[in-house]
Amino acid sequence: MVVTDEQRLDATFAALASSTRRAILARLAQSQATVNELAEPFDLQLPAISKHIKVLERAGLIERTRNAQYRPCTLNPAPLAEVSSWAERYRPIWEARFDRMDSYVQEIQASQRRSQRKEAT
Amino acid sequence: MVVTDEQRLDATFAALASSTRRAILARLAQSQATVNELAEPFDLQLPAISKHIKVLERAGLIERTRNAQYRPCTLNPAPLAEVSSWAERYRPIWEARFDRMDSYVQEIQASQRRSQRKEAT
Repeated sequence: MVVTDEQRLDATFAALASSTRRAILARLAQSQATVNELAEPFDLQLPAISKHIKVLERAGLIERTRNAQYRPCTLNPAPLAEVSSWAERYRPIWEARFDRMDSYVQEIQASQRRSQRKEAT
Repeated sequence: MVVTDEQRLDATFAALASSTRRAILARLAQSQATVNELAEPFDLQLPAISKHIKVLERAGLIERTRNAQYRPCTLNPAPLAEVSSWAERYRPIWEARFDRMDSYVQEIQASQRRSQRKEAT
């Protein structure tokens, strides 16, 4: 089966739509870890954590060594680079909006200063 | 109900896990549009497109004017800025990995050139 960029993004975004799975990735950003090591800080039962790891693995966000006895999980950052470059396409739009909000706030502050000055005189 | 950053990210990522919804956002990045205008290029029935719009609206990615007769949809880019800055935290990791891949490829190419030179002599 050919997996398109769109299908890969679907799987990545779906995998990231869970704070537990995002926390697992943050943990693996520090170092690789076994399933047992991952289960501990999250206070989750092994079957629950295994399910989360499978979702991350299917989305290509986690790799597991096939040969090693303990099969530690490693973060694969490539799909996160794709998420970033997908979102970055919208940067001109959010920067324009934030700029407009900035000038709006500055306008309000200037008009407040003017009326305070009027009251003081 | 207090919505935490984590809950907001959950909703944003879940909303983005659909190529149709991502295409709706790309369309709205050009200009605002009514539900009818959005339905047309996607060859979707109105109920289907309305459902996608509701998911995007709940995630705060789309805003709809309450008063206007046609209630056009507008892109709200703020959650996309959050997605970008969330993913950017992992940039050092993917850059390091891509650098390693680069040097690996260069090493292979250099060794191929060396063996070609040997064969030529």
